[in-house]
Amino acid sequence: MIYNPGMTTSTTTSTNWDRLAEASRRWQTINSITSLLHWDQETKMPSKGIDHRGRQVALLARMAHEEATCTEVGEMIAACEADDDLTGNPDSDTAINVARLRRDYDRGTKLSIELVGERAELATKAQHHWAKARAADDYAQFEPWLDKVIDLNRRMAEAFGWAEGGEPWDALAEDYEAGCTAAWVESVFTPLRERLQTLLDACMGSSTQPSNAFNEVCLPVDKQEAFVRLIADKIGFDFDRGRLDVSTHPFCSGFHPTDVRITTRFHENNLNDAIGSTMHECGHGIYEQGLRTDMAGLPLGTSVSLGIHESQSRMWENQVGRSDTFWRWACEELKSTFGNDVAHLSYDDVYGGANIVRPDFIRVEADEATYNMHIMIRFELERLMLKGELNAADVPEAWNQRYREYLGIDVPDNARGCMQDIHWSMCAMGYFPTYTLGNLYSAQLYEAACDANPDLEDGYAKGEFTALRTWLNDNVHVHGRRYDAATLCEKATGKPLSADPLMRHLGGKLSAIYGL
Amino acid sequence: MIYNPGMTTSTTTSTNWDRLAEASRRWQTINSITSLLHWDQETKMPSKGIDHRGRQVALLARMAHEEATCTEVGEMIAACEADDDLTGNPDSDTAINVARLRRDYDRGTKLSIELVGERAELATKAQHHWAKARAADDYAQFEPWLDKVIDLNRRMAEAFGWAEGGEPWDALAEDYEAGCTAAWVESVFTPLRERLQTLLDACMGSSTQPSNAFNEVCLPVDKQEAFVRLIADKIGFDFDRGRLDVSTHPFCSGFHPTDVRITTRFHENNLNDAIGSTMHECGHGIYEQGLRTDMAGLPLGTSVSLGIHESQSRMWENQVGRSDTFWRWACEELKSTFGNDVAHLSYDDVYGGANIVRPDFIRVEADEATYNMHIMIRFELERLMLKGELNAADVPEAWNQRYREYLGIDVPDNARGCMQDIHWSMCAMGYFPTYTLGNLYSAQLYEAACDANPDLEDGYAKGEFTALRTWLNDNVHVHGRRYDAATLCEKATGKPLSADPLMRHLGGKLSAIYGL
Repeated sequence: MIYNPGMTTSTTTSTNWDRLAEASRRWQTINSITSLLHWDQETKMPSKGIDHRGRQVALLARMAHEEATCTEVGEMIAACEADDDLTGNPDSDTAINVARLRRDYDRGTKLSIELVGERAELATKAQHHWAKARAADDYAQFEPWLDKVIDLNRRMAEAFGWAEGGEPWDALAEDYEAGCTAAWVESVFTPLRERLQTLLDACMGSSTQPSNAFNEVCLPVDKQEAFVRLIADKIGFDFDRGRLDVSTHPFCSGFHPTDVRITTRFHENNLNDAIGSTMHECGHGIYEQGLRTDMAGLPLGTSVSLGIHESQSRMWENQVGRSDTFWRWACEELKSTFGNDVAHLSYDDVYGGANIVRPDFIRVEADEATYNMHIMIRFELERLMLKGELNAADVPEAWNQRYREYLGIDVPDNARGCMQDIHWSMCAMGYFPTYTLGNLYSAQLYEAACDANPDLEDGYAKGEFTALRTWLNDNVHVHGRRYDAATLCEKATGKPLSADPLMRHLGGKLSAIYGL
Repeated sequence: MIYNPGMTTSTTTSTNWDRLAEASRRWQTINSITSLLHWDQETKMPSKGIDHRGRQVALLARMAHEEATCTEVGEMIAACEADDDLTGNPDSDTAINVARLRRDYDRGTKLSIELVGERAELATKAQHHWAKARAADDYAQFEPWLDKVIDLNRRMAEAFGWAEGGEPWDALAEDYEAGCTAAWVESVFTPLRERLQTLLDACMGSSTQPSNAFNEVCLPVDKQEAFVRLIADKIGFDFDRGRLDVSTHPFCSGFHPTDVRITTRFHENNLNDAIGSTMHECGHGIYEQGLRTDMAGLPLGTSVSLGIHESQSRMWENQVGRSDTFWRWACEELKSTFGNDVAHLSYDDVYGGANIVRPDFIRVEADEATYNMHIMIRFELERLMLKGELNAADVPEAWNQRYREYLGIDVPDNARGCMQDIHWSMCAMGYFPTYTLGNLYSAQLYEAACDANPDLEDGYAKGEFTALRTWLNDNVHVHGRRYDAATLCEKATGKPLSADPLMRHLGGKLSAIYGL
């Protein structure tokens, strides 16, 4: 699908839109530099560079915010809205861009420049102290920073405001998943938890259990890296327009479709983690690389929401990376990469080992069935923090108590407990539920891709993944922010979001593996 | 030496200076981000990210230039100059800072914002095309970009202007070495070339020649990296406040004294290149790390000139890294790092091999005696380009002809000829002579450091380098831009700049090695 934007824009009316587009590209260029600073901080920056990095990031955040919320931008948007040639057809590229810029402008102007600078600086510092505290398993080091983060987020929520009957959490979630409220998330999560619990109990109680042999091998990190680079390349992450590095917490930074950086991590005794992390971040990266270059810096060249973003990462990680046909190909590559170290593993050992279900402490290492429980716990705690009902000092206990209740496990320490994730240290609250929404969108979009391409999964067995990537390019990536998440889902799958595809995906696969 | 700045500033008069300082720190923070973008471009950026990187860099360059040259800054400087409490004592920190800001402001306001943006964007692109053209040894790819660079530099020289009797080159050199003119450089270079030529002829004609065995060993790159990291750490490059990476052309980027990045490069058959490059860039890095943190973003927290910067890099590379006592220590480390691969080498093989004099094509691989000839050739060509007397099309021939005349060698191709250096592709003209000035300053400063610490060189044999670093910290780094290069040289050495120390250094060492 090729767009040819702006063809209908007449020269007499183009000035306001051209100026607005130029302004948007400019502040988004600043934002892309901020992203690079974050990437560098996580992957390359020397430890003592942190304070100056904080100043750099805060300065750019203030500059971008000032540019994006200045009066002139408001005037340009209003002028475009008033110009029928530009926005009379609400489906035109320009009308969509203007409408999304309007939404962002109205939201952005609610935040003072001081709060923006404060958030940028706090995020940099809190993240740094989080990393140190986590490495030392010393929650006391992180606690004061988390309190600052809670306080800042509460003030931000106040500034944004929330709808009648809503709560502070809603105000923040809007940045990550437009239209998402805590009440709605709860209404999705509660029945999902019950269905997942039932499936989990069945798996745990079954007399058929997959072999754990794959997860017991120790494999050299350099070969693991070669292996995940092979997978990344095969599934379509473009290394001429991206990089793969190592960081504590894997992430993806897209500065522009031509420069997308993903990270992963390696542990000698956990190849599955490296594969899962890499394919996950590749999914994010392939989305960013699939955005329209001609719309870079404009809403139509930007991803929809974190939920949709996560649907892309989870799809490559789970629907593809834990599938039978993927491992038909990958198992052969595994043998040729690691040789004797994996010679004793059967196909069933590997495929089963990649799909073991077991409650554990770490979200990013969690299997598909328990993963969403981790999210539900974080969501509950965030809501409380933002209501002022949970302080940093009480987070470890609240965390550990829920892990006992929902997953039946005792958290061994805070490093593997409430300090495992980077998000809160980045000042990001209202973000976590997008992971579970991503799982739901992922399963539903994947079913639609399979319906459209009945041979899709057969290709994986031959190391061919182009059909899925192309379907995602055409049905998700190229639209940018044209549709909101719910509408995009309906356009691409013909149905509103439902938990059924995820439960079908998990139920089908796990029934076979666990002999349910 | 500890400075306690601003202690005498009274609160009633501090406002203008505080505002000016804040403004300066702000535009220098932007510049520090631009430096990070350049570092990333050379070391990490995926190839297709180049166009967006050009936009990012150009935007920041325009922003920094706009901030540094706006009317308000001019007014704040004038207000500080008019305030006797701030600038009445011309030796006070504030007076020095204001005087340097005045000089920069007057120079900066001569350049239009369009020219600044154009330079930034051209530098990014020309550098990218230079790297590709050089890799393919395809001068035709680079030629149009060099023509653009020449044209832009000529327009910049016009904008700056030059003194009566001077020439365009002078206008550009001012950015790198304040007060330096082509006529003065020529008056220094011509006699120096004769003295060096005489020494070179004597070495070449001697019946005593050092062994080349050290330069004939092939050593694995991973061990080379471990070895140069050991040296960098020993001589005092602080890895908590810096990084070492790999790039085609080694360089140093200082964003702040707490984040200084150096690069080096490795060839299996040329450990000397990796050592020389690493110690060279460490010298730059140690200077940047030695600047006053409390003055970061202000002239007193900034390096003096490129000539002084280069004196630091050349000192660690040559005065230290090619010295007898350094190799007394390093030769032992060499044996323990590389084991059998170097077991056949004697101390004389290694020390002699690090000091072989032989005319060759590549500047950054040149020995100390021929190095300055490379600079003289580039200087002559730049002068002609800027006068409009040499186009890009004629550069290869002009280059090769001078290599025959000055060094008696035939340049084999343009990749090893006129495309070997990054500078012109970065739009930097008027820069090269600072390398030879750096050699002269280096030798003279080093003699002064040895006079002040008679045991200095004995320490090297034990792997101790703190005395030299501390002397440089106290006599060069901590002053920032307090003095100009010539004055700093006199303050630190008691004498004006002379070529005698360099000739003493080279003559003494080479006479021993070559039995002259």
